[in-house]
Amino acid sequence: MLTENEAGNLRVVLVAARNPLNIGAAARAMSNFGFLRLRVVNSYNVAFREARSAVGAPHLLSNAEEFASVAEAVADCGLVVGTTAAGASRRLEHPLHRLDEGGGLIRARLRAERVALLFGSEKRGLSNEDLSYCHWLMRIPTREAHSSMNLGQAAAVCLYELIRAESVAVATESEARASGAALERMTGTLLDALAGSGYTKPGAEAATEEKARRLIRRMNLSEEDAETWTGMLAKAGYRKR
Amino acid sequence: MLTENEAGNLRVVLVAARNPLNIGAAARAMSNFGFLRLRVVNSYNVAFREARSAVGAPHLLSNAEEFASVAEAVADCGLVVGTTAAGASRRLEHPLHRLDEGGGLIRARLRAERVALLFGSEKRGLSNEDLSYCHWLMRIPTREAHSSMNLGQAAAVCLYELIRAESVAVATESEARASGAALERMTGTLLDALAGSGYTKPGAEAATEEKARRLIRRMNLSEEDAETWTGMLAKAGYRKR
Repeated sequence: MLTENEAGNLRVVLVAARNPLNIGAAARAMSNFGFLRLRVVNSYNVAFREARSAVGAPHLLSNAEEFASVAEAVADCGLVVGTTAAGASRRLEHPLHRLDEGGGLIRARLRAERVALLFGSEKRGLSNEDLSYCHWLMRIPTREAHSSMNLGQAAAVCLYELIRAESVAVATESEARASGAALERMTGTLLDALAGSGYTKPGAEAATEEKARRLIRRMNLSEEDAETWTGMLAKAGYRKR
Repeated sequence: MLTENEAGNLRVVLVAARNPLNIGAAARAMSNFGFLRLRVVNSYNVAFREARSAVGAPHLLSNAEEFASVAEAVADCGLVVGTTAAGASRRLEHPLHRLDEGGGLIRARLRAERVALLFGSEKRGLSNEDLSYCHWLMRIPTREAHSSMNLGQAAAVCLYELIRAESVAVATESEARASGAALERMTGTLLDALAGSGYTKPGAEAATEEKARRLIRRMNLSEEDAETWTGMLAKAGYRKR
């Protein structure tokens, strides 16, 4: 996970964005994932003003910095990364890292310095000139048949990768599992409810008991759920007497 | 990476979506990442029609299936997962996996069976009733101060995680899990057995139904075990009449 300082070292740079909804969506994803420094380059002014004034616009839009050129927008950054959803087949003059690899490289650099992450306009992506400021490119692994992503969604996916936990912990059970005694109470209650119901074939009582016991153990119940079941089964079994 | 067949086992289910732009954005993310099976539940019809007819709408929107209820939309799915951007502090009655863990669990299950991934409306998310059909919930790790995500962006991030290369090895289930329809039969049989038993407090019928549904989903039953339970509960409930 990134510290607040590390996240504060990222500059999301939108180049030539034209659609206020997309600018707003990119800003929203930034806010969702804790990256609060937005820079816009050569944006169509009306679009930027509209995005800023939209209802519910993230606070970070008001603090966004405007630049006339990519050169100025990345001048204080030690690493500049361009994003692309282009297929691997497109000829590129830059080193290209898939998003999962690139995310790790960016995280490592954020510990020490500012990193600029560039997104192009939806229509044309980043121009060759924009790309010339980039140290390398990061590719979102979309499928060839439909590779072009929406700007807000591309930003969301890239920023999610940056805050994604590097090592995935094994899913832990949040609650203790039911004790053997609780499971045995539940088993007994189920068997009582079944007794004489016709479920158990005469002579197969022991087999039914084992079947019920195994069935209940496979459920991997929490203590609370085992008790709920025991209560339900007791009621379902008692009513008829 | 997922095979085409594995990706084909995912059903993205939009519940009560109201905004055509968001429906379209979710469909676009699906197309970008190769998940082509969309289901919509109880969508505002005008919104769905608008999304369908929008310029550049992904092809998969025309093939989307419409359902009147979540129960019907997940009936043929062996695993039902709800998505949430809620903070970990929110009290939940479901097992909760962070997106990176949950993605691995879903990938493993897609090898053998259909998985439904549910997204709620932007305003209210998934309702308690919607959640009662879910085996577990998957949380996108947004920050507490601004946790609520745009629907299209949430879909993009979740689907990206599913196709992300460094897939986490997860113990695979050897047997297919019970379908939504089988779990619903078991739930109905349990409720019948409880009806009139005094278990359900007058006026709390809906709450008991949700409680039973969630309890049964948490058990993670195989199809065979679900049928065994249904048979037992039917007998336990009938004897008294």
